[in-house]
Amino acid sequence: MNRIDLNCDLGESFGAYKIGRDEEVVKYISSANVGCGFHAGDPCVMEHTVRLAKQNGVSVGAHPGFPDLLGFGRRKMDVKPEEAKAYMKYQIGALNAFCVSNGVKLVHVKPHGALYNMAGKDEKLAGALAEAVYEVDPGLIFLGLSGSKMLEAARAVGLTCASEVFADRAYNADGSLVARGTPGAVIHDVNECVRRIIGMVKDHTVTAITGEQIHLEPQSICVHGDTAEAVEFVRNIRESLAGEGIEIANLAAVCAGK
Amino acid sequence: MNRIDLNCDLGESFGAYKIGRDEEVVKYISSANVGCGFHAGDPCVMEHTVRLAKQNGVSVGAHPGFPDLLGFGRRKMDVKPEEAKAYMKYQIGALNAFCVSNGVKLVHVKPHGALYNMAGKDEKLAGALAEAVYEVDPGLIFLGLSGSKMLEAARAVGLTCASEVFADRAYNADGSLVARGTPGAVIHDVNECVRRIIGMVKDHTVTAITGEQIHLEPQSICVHGDTAEAVEFVRNIRESLAGEGIEIANLAAVCAGK
Amino acid sequence: MNRIDLNCDLGESFGAYKIGRDEEVVKYISSANVGCGFHAGDPCVMEHTVRLAKQNGVSVGAHPGFPDLLGFGRRKMDVKPEEAKAYMKYQIGALNAFCVSNGVKLVHVKPHGALYNMAGKDEKLAGALAEAVYEVDPGLIFLGLSGSKMLEAARAVGLTCASEVFADRAYNADGSLVARGTPGAVIHDVNECVRRIIGMVKDHTVTAITGEQIHLEPQSICVHGDTAEAVEFVRNIRESLAGEGIEIANLAAVCAGK
Amino acid sequence: MNRIDLNCDLGESFGAYKIGRDEEVVKYISSANVGCGFHAGDPCVMEHTVRLAKQNGVSVGAHPGFPDLLGFGRRKMDVKPEEAKAYMKYQIGALNAFCVSNGVKLVHVKPHGALYNMAGKDEKLAGALAEAVYEVDPGLIFLGLSGSKMLEAARAVGLTCASEVFADRAYNADGSLVARGTPGAVIHDVNECVRRIIGMVKDHTVTAITGEQIHLEPQSICVHGDTAEAVEFVRNIRESLAGEGIEIANLAAVCAGK
Repeated sequence: MNRIDLNCDLGESFGAYKIGRDEEVVKYISSANVGCGFHAGDPCVMEHTVRLAKQNGVSVGAHPGFPDLLGFGRRKMDVKPEEAKAYMKYQIGALNAFCVSNGVKLVHVKPHGALYNMAGKDEKLAGALAEAVYEVDPGLIFLGLSGSKMLEAARAVGLTCASEVFADRAYNADGSLVARGTPGAVIHDVNECVRRIIGMVKDHTVTAITGEQIHLEPQSICVHGDTAEAVEFVRNIRESLAGEGIEIANLAAVCAGK
Repeated sequence: MNRIDLNCDLGESFGAYKIGRDEEVVKYISSANVGCGFHAGDPCVMEHTVRLAKQNGVSVGAHPGFPDLLGFGRRKMDVKPEEAKAYMKYQIGALNAFCVSNGVKLVHVKPHGALYNMAGKDEKLAGALAEAVYEVDPGLIFLGLSGSKMLEAARAVGLTCASEVFADRAYNADGSLVARGTPGAVIHDVNECVRRIIGMVKDHTVTAITGEQIHLEPQSICVHGDTAEAVEFVRNIRESLAGEGIEIANLAAVCAGK
Repeated sequence: MNRIDLNCDLGESFGAYKIGRDEEVVKYISSANVGCGFHAGDPCVMEHTVRLAKQNGVSVGAHPGFPDLLGFGRRKMDVKPEEAKAYMKYQIGALNAFCVSNGVKLVHVKPHGALYNMAGKDEKLAGALAEAVYEVDPGLIFLGLSGSKMLEAARAVGLTCASEVFADRAYNADGSLVARGTPGAVIHDVNECVRRIIGMVKDHTVTAITGEQIHLEPQSICVHGDTAEAVEFVRNIRESLAGEGIEIANLAAVCAGK
Repeated sequence: MNRIDLNCDLGESFGAYKIGRDEEVVKYISSANVGCGFHAGDPCVMEHTVRLAKQNGVSVGAHPGFPDLLGFGRRKMDVKPEEAKAYMKYQIGALNAFCVSNGVKLVHVKPHGALYNMAGKDEKLAGALAEAVYEVDPGLIFLGLSGSKMLEAARAVGLTCASEVFADRAYNADGSLVARGTPGAVIHDVNECVRRIIGMVKDHTVTAITGEQIHLEPQSICVHGDTAEAVEFVRNIRESLAGEGIEIANLAAVCAGK
């Protein structure tokens, strides 16, 4: 079946600080990764964001990060696996309280920033994250980078995994993302992005930056809502996918059908 | 039935900083109020403390406070009720993740420090805290100061309440605590403390600092574990109560029997 | 001489979070109150802001607040005077390092938010803040609300004081600000604001909300740079004052001439 | 001349959390590295610690660390050099405010924990730290690990450097410390430690774990004050050095005489 989830980070404001065009982008996505107060987000923002997602029929996931608000969770931190595990549990539990009290089911967990990047390559860290999710709720879906250690670790502990791809990023032949900064790493042409996504969703392939065909089986596409252009891009993708007969569905539905 | 709970704050260490003689005092209490990371505690400490409580057959409660680690949650903060409500949900949820993943039931919630003191007198704040607890889990017991606005608010939303008394504190004729700093506010003689507790538990009365008899129906006694003397005091109380035929039982059991 | 300073809060961004139109408003002001990392600002933002002020010939002051990033320093906190004093020293010193290393003289200190409001009315707190400033550098100018306890306390310890007024706020007969929320508290008509300022600067009077004439001797006008409208308002005031022959000068110049 | 400084971390308590036996160990050392509020310490602790050092005739230095209170600054963080530079300036300036207001001269800077370890090996980071110190005050002494990139970088920008050695740690043949965890990395015999120090101070040599003689020219010995044993160890070293005719002098004196 041609179904795909569109996931986006939401709820990353903090106190008086606003970030992201949550109210706009929420209309076009199917899953929200909600900040949990470590790298971004605060209790009031979390309450608001869970309600916003509910009102828009968007599925809610936890988006836990490193305890580094100053660095927005984007800086590698040399935490021990058991520390990372405890940080994950804490953040998932915190968000879940807002879900429960709003009658919303917490569906997935997607680590943020440097935690996501490190766990994508580090088996021990990935294992710790997967264990944390499983121990808090074995019914949660672990959303991670296609082909990463995170997904392997999640599968190993018995979690349902969802594999995400990026519309606007080039891939290496081994399926990893071309590092930002490398020429060609980011694809700026919307039509090209849409073509690539359609290929990934329908044919399970994408062309690597070095020309090879890569096999991918994505359940979700990661999109952004931080600028007006980003929101417009998401709207564009959504419409283009519809035109191709690809249904946007939330993670639970996509994973149930895979 | 002559049953009473002994509750004590645990899990208030933070990172490299150790506070409290948790490993010792946990042997003598029946309920632990576990720090949730705002005024004290961190994810690793919470994991450790929930396990420690489990191993010692001690019932676990959340001990949420103001977001003021520097002030240990002891400083009044002029937060709005809706902010306090969100802070409560966040912290209860965070602790619950460690309970769930360790197969422990979260039993009660007791606010900490300035939040406890403010909500004891401020109806709106008390209402916000009670709503937070109820919305996260209506089966949680709200533990608060005997005669305070907190217990009224908790009852009003439909929560089970537990009323706590202090062994070593003098009472005013209206049932409120004599403010620290007032001569006679703290009772230093252990035997006198034990006599007062026995009176409160068995006869539901205590003599006010001004001589009147006060009616109290406590479900729990608040004790401390921060010094060797405090731990010794708890051990002493425990033994004295046993000698008087008063059973130490956890909050759920005491509340079920009231 | 008809001279007045225009002061504005700058450098209140934090990490990935941007707040304020610093680059625009800096062109129209003469003094910047720079966030010091407690309620807002971070070391990189402070470095950037001190340089921005220098490039624009704007005088630099410290803008210390409560340790409450989540509340943007706007929530009252029940800190002891000695704690507030230490918080002041810490923040002034931190900002001074960026001044010294950029060859900029730190000229003034203006407390932020709830700290400003509380110290405006609380003699002990005001005294602690004034002592902090004096002990760090007796040559600093203390900038505070016209007629407040802060200015009294600053004078008492031997500091040079600067009195600030608000262009868009109504005054009570005793010279205090009409509380926000009260009808008429905020004046929205720019021309009316400009007329009031001209009266305050040239004639040292303003009409209270209850009709009385109030005597004021302002050294500075507090303006804002958080929205496009606010910046436009500042530009407007600046031009109108010039048209009236009132010179915009920085605090040191204004205070030297008073 | 046979002179050496004894430096120890002080002022690493935070709020209600006490760490270190500052009041005891301060009697035996000549220089204090004072926590600056990022990895440890808070404004009130800093005020107290600067006074404590002054009362005991101990020289004061800044001990800046990563913004990671939860990890006590011991975890590597992937900060950019310009971020680290700004963090250094901020913390040095903050401490200096307490020095100035107490009539104490800030003498040196020694980075803490992971920042110290990373900058010991990373030229760019070391350069950023050295620049920060120099730009805030070119008269400050940079205290760092003997043979590290930090000292090279400090010399390169024109700072006076002080080289520190460890009494209880084994050295590799290249002059680096044997990593903790390696058998023999920590020397537990006090007499052996004292013998090694005397050799380092008098003869500028120490025997590597692999048997080679290493040349070292220390200006300071790093000691600890976190346990009763540690304090006793410092007292012991102090007395033993005196018995050998080695004078304990503060950093400024030792560096002036080198």
